[in-house]
Amino acid sequence: MNISLKYQDLLNFVEKNISDLVPECEPKSLYEPFKYVMLGGGKRIRPILNLLGCGIASNDHNEAIYSAVAIEILHNFTLVHDDIMDNSNFRRNKPTVHKKWNNAIAILTGDVMIGYAYNLLNKHNNHRNFNQILKLFTNEIIEVCEGQILDMDFNYNKNVTLDDYINMIDKKTARLIETSLSIGGLIGNCSQIEYNALKNIGKNVGLAFQIQDDILDMVANETELGKKIGNDLLEGKKTILVIKAKETVSENADKEFIEYYFNNNGLKDDEIKIMDAIFKKYNIYDFAIDKMNKYFNNAEDNYKYLKDNEYKELLIDIISKLKNRKY
Amino acid sequence: MNISLKYQDLLNFVEKNISDLVPECEPKSLYEPFKYVMLGGGKRIRPILNLLGCGIASNDHNEAIYSAVAIEILHNFTLVHDDIMDNSNFRRNKPTVHKKWNNAIAILTGDVMIGYAYNLLNKHNNHRNFNQILKLFTNEIIEVCEGQILDMDFNYNKNVTLDDYINMIDKKTARLIETSLSIGGLIGNCSQIEYNALKNIGKNVGLAFQIQDDILDMVANETELGKKIGNDLLEGKKTILVIKAKETVSENADKEFIEYYFNNNGLKDDEIKIMDAIFKKYNIYDFAIDKMNKYFNNAEDNYKYLKDNEYKELLIDIISKLKNRKY
Repeated sequence: MNISLKYQDLLNFVEKNISDLVPECEPKSLYEPFKYVMLGGGKRIRPILNLLGCGIASNDHNEAIYSAVAIEILHNFTLVHDDIMDNSNFRRNKPTVHKKWNNAIAILTGDVMIGYAYNLLNKHNNHRNFNQILKLFTNEIIEVCEGQILDMDFNYNKNVTLDDYINMIDKKTARLIETSLSIGGLIGNCSQIEYNALKNIGKNVGLAFQIQDDILDMVANETELGKKIGNDLLEGKKTILVIKAKETVSENADKEFIEYYFNNNGLKDDEIKIMDAIFKKYNIYDFAIDKMNKYFNNAEDNYKYLKDNEYKELLIDIISKLKNRKY
Repeated sequence: MNISLKYQDLLNFVEKNISDLVPECEPKSLYEPFKYVMLGGGKRIRPILNLLGCGIASNDHNEAIYSAVAIEILHNFTLVHDDIMDNSNFRRNKPTVHKKWNNAIAILTGDVMIGYAYNLLNKHNNHRNFNQILKLFTNEIIEVCEGQILDMDFNYNKNVTLDDYINMIDKKTARLIETSLSIGGLIGNCSQIEYNALKNIGKNVGLAFQIQDDILDMVANETELGKKIGNDLLEGKKTILVIKAKETVSENADKEFIEYYFNNNGLKDDEIKIMDAIFKKYNIYDFAIDKMNKYFNNAEDNYKYLKDNEYKELLIDIISKLKNRKY
């Protein structure tokens, strides 16, 4: 198999179906922003994982297309609403919905997207696993809201622990990756062992991916990353690095600097390098990389429970590329 | 049967279950506002109609409790988000969620409420009508968003027709009344004839109720109504009265006044009486009352398709009281 071709096949399949399934109807003031969001790019990683879950279990990805698009709509709904909350001006190099239109339209666009996501998911209602699929999907909506509010709560919480952090990224980021793979598996009538493996892979890759994001924010090449190195620190984010540093630093001056970070809710441009030096001095990067690798390894440990086919091969390839990304 | 007792029974049943089923969990920053909204009062008319639909079909309302609470959560989600869009400070004499907390929390509270509404609805997933119930519920979410945006679009549209108006109130208000009764019927395993009757009753009562609201805004007793007479006109709303007046007025001075209303997006306090005089001169009130009565009559015409039982008796009583309300 030519893996990159297969990936492109799935991507084209997803894009075509998004384009076909996102409604073009009245009132335009609602469906134009909906289309704008859904056709505005994105890596489509979640719908592709959903198709792969189905293909791994059944050797065919086609049946999962409605859930794949439903999951991508759900993901994009969270982006539209998060962008309002974070007051973000741009997403995928285009103005966010609330900037291009207004807050009211962005709120309603997100809301109607939930309805359409269920509308598509419900097309699987004759599937024998439908009840479980519906439960996973509904649970995801609840947990992604919990993850977002936990993330927002972190702004006002100086005592975020590593457990708090893992719980937050589990809900905000990892659960949807997990849900994508496991709903795909259920549509492909996976066995219980395959289901557990897909869940574990999704969850662990999701956690590893977010930790990797935190690390790359400090160590990537700025041009490749497409944003400033240390951007999270400028924004005062509670990344795994600063949380671990807070727990670890022993010398007074370093302690004070970390305290300053938490009290000040962020750093100035020229202070990034001080934090970088602290991260190096106390092996914080190594800690985070170990943690990330542990999650990637957990995911990989589950490969053996999945039947060998081209979908499994592609999933392994995607995760391996993810693991080795430099930005 | 003592009807008022029965109504109170159902109301107590709804209140108790809302209190039991609305989650009390972490993160508090999300679930406190959720509880605040759900335990903050409200007439509970939609869940009661849902129970009645079930009771009419099956002589027992108990089975419909999850959908009843799901519908009430759905209704309250729309209020939380609408209040942000309309920048309303108070709801049920208490600060709105976005005023008591903030916009971000209000957006997320509404979002998580959709998830919980589905969570409860899904408890009916072994019911033979579940797919249809799920479809109606999902459709309601989509249409209520469409109704809200149509209503917002009216602010910028000087050419709203009566058909536009009916379409808007159908989606924004009537559909949920219709959905409440018909999902109840489906849970009670109603016949197709009963289902159609419940749908028709819900839709027509919903339309009549909204038209009645527009009329009462001008003709009710101010103390009983609990707000200023002519409040809709102060806000420049496109009520059935002003839309019909725009279509009807013939004399130049009246035409100009109506034009002024549409261009100015509302009136000043002392101009309400001028509009009231125009409404009287051109029989606009009579037109709206006829229209309202036509919808109430349409609803009543469907009673004959429903089996006689105490639930039907209570439904008829509720609609009759609604029809005769003076505020």
